[in-house]
Amino acid sequence: MTGKLFVIGTGPGNPDQLTPEALAAVAASTEFFGYFPYIDRLNLRPGQIKVASDNREELNRAQAALMRAAEGVNVCVVSGGDPGVFAMAAAVCEAIDAGPEEWKSVDLTVVPGVTAMLAVAARIGAPLGHDFCAISLSDNLKPWDIIEKRLRLVSEAGLVIALYNPISKARPWQLGRAFEILRETLPATTPVIFGRAAGRPDERMLVMPLGEAEAERADMATCVVIGSPETRIIARPGLADLVYTPRFLKDASK
Amino acid sequence: MTGKLFVIGTGPGNPDQLTPEALAAVAASTEFFGYFPYIDRLNLRPGQIKVASDNREELNRAQAALMRAAEGVNVCVVSGGDPGVFAMAAAVCEAIDAGPEEWKSVDLTVVPGVTAMLAVAARIGAPLGHDFCAISLSDNLKPWDIIEKRLRLVSEAGLVIALYNPISKARPWQLGRAFEILRETLPATTPVIFGRAAGRPDERMLVMPLGEAEAERADMATCVVIGSPETRIIARPGLADLVYTPRFLKDASK
Repeated sequence: MTGKLFVIGTGPGNPDQLTPEALAAVAASTEFFGYFPYIDRLNLRPGQIKVASDNREELNRAQAALMRAAEGVNVCVVSGGDPGVFAMAAAVCEAIDAGPEEWKSVDLTVVPGVTAMLAVAARIGAPLGHDFCAISLSDNLKPWDIIEKRLRLVSEAGLVIALYNPISKARPWQLGRAFEILRETLPATTPVIFGRAAGRPDERMLVMPLGEAEAERADMATCVVIGSPETRIIARPGLADLVYTPRFLKDASK
Repeated sequence: MTGKLFVIGTGPGNPDQLTPEALAAVAASTEFFGYFPYIDRLNLRPGQIKVASDNREELNRAQAALMRAAEGVNVCVVSGGDPGVFAMAAAVCEAIDAGPEEWKSVDLTVVPGVTAMLAVAARIGAPLGHDFCAISLSDNLKPWDIIEKRLRLVSEAGLVIALYNPISKARPWQLGRAFEILRETLPATTPVIFGRAAGRPDERMLVMPLGEAEAERADMATCVVIGSPETRIIARPGLADLVYTPRFLKDASK
């Protein structure tokens, strides 16, 4: 019999946004595989072992965890946010798909969590209140021309757009280019939300119109949400603006 | 000073997927506004008051809650899933936007949660492992031709597609029509996941190729996830198939 392999997300970083199901998976595991800052969000017992690795090594990490689970150890693979959104659940599946036959028998449980765009949306109002999409701007794993094509199509479709992995030292220009592309289709007044570290002590929420949006306002901890043409801003005296996308959409042809 | 107005989601229905933050909001509230089945998922204390309403009355419900909060009562507006995804957070913002000036001063907190597509994805593997979108098939709030246009554009973009509100007694044909449209662009082998009541005792997960997908397999408790051309199925001896979308995408032009 194999050990259990849990794949969890820590949520956006606020411990109150981690579900009891994820905490139970942590309690049931003895070895933890993940990017160091995510593992460090967990309160582990003495005897629970951290096997930390670098941010870029998802597939190796998934393989290492599967190997230990196949040996009978209960292991926990740790992502930030939700493990199914641009995170470790897909890496674990890739490793199973390409790995030795016995890995297919590993007792796998993916535990859903609160992904960044939902935490950002909650802090600012309801920008994801209507149709939306989530696109990773990282061109490490897909060609940049496909990202451009997707941005054009989803903005033409009128979806709200959540951008994950918007910027990093190795990818400094992609977010600015994404804004340029979106300006071709969307009104300059479209609200852009720079949602950094939502729910954490170092949270910073910033709203700018697309026409003035600057890529430098984002960092690696930021999820950028670009409204649709229907997205609205509510000014509130003495309180932060609310940004929301109405549930209804009028028929422009009528 | 106004009362607090919390907008929470119960998650997909498994109590272990409800965050401590949402439970704290429940504990701090005295009146609860929501669709009856969602409110009934909460364990309320004696003295906490349920103001249940029908599924279709979101705006009235939001207004009633805002009125009570403006009067100084701590109220909780209850959605299923995440309150910001096709749910009550947008309705509350709409009510504030169009309502009396004093509602803008209400102390509003939206609490993020686990939305249905994340719970479904976790149960089946990692179908949302790459770029994806969430589209409501309800044409109560937007014209059907816009939904068709969006389906065409997002399938052309190669996004995984999560369909919310896929079917109901009043909307019997829309999901079948959506499958027809998607078949024009996507391979007949594209996996379609019918994820019903993920994480609840009456959960039912079903995977069919798009070419054979039948709308009758969905009900109101189902979130339908349609893969991209890259989405893969892993057969596992003695275990349910895994469905996942790889994190990487090759450059087809090279």
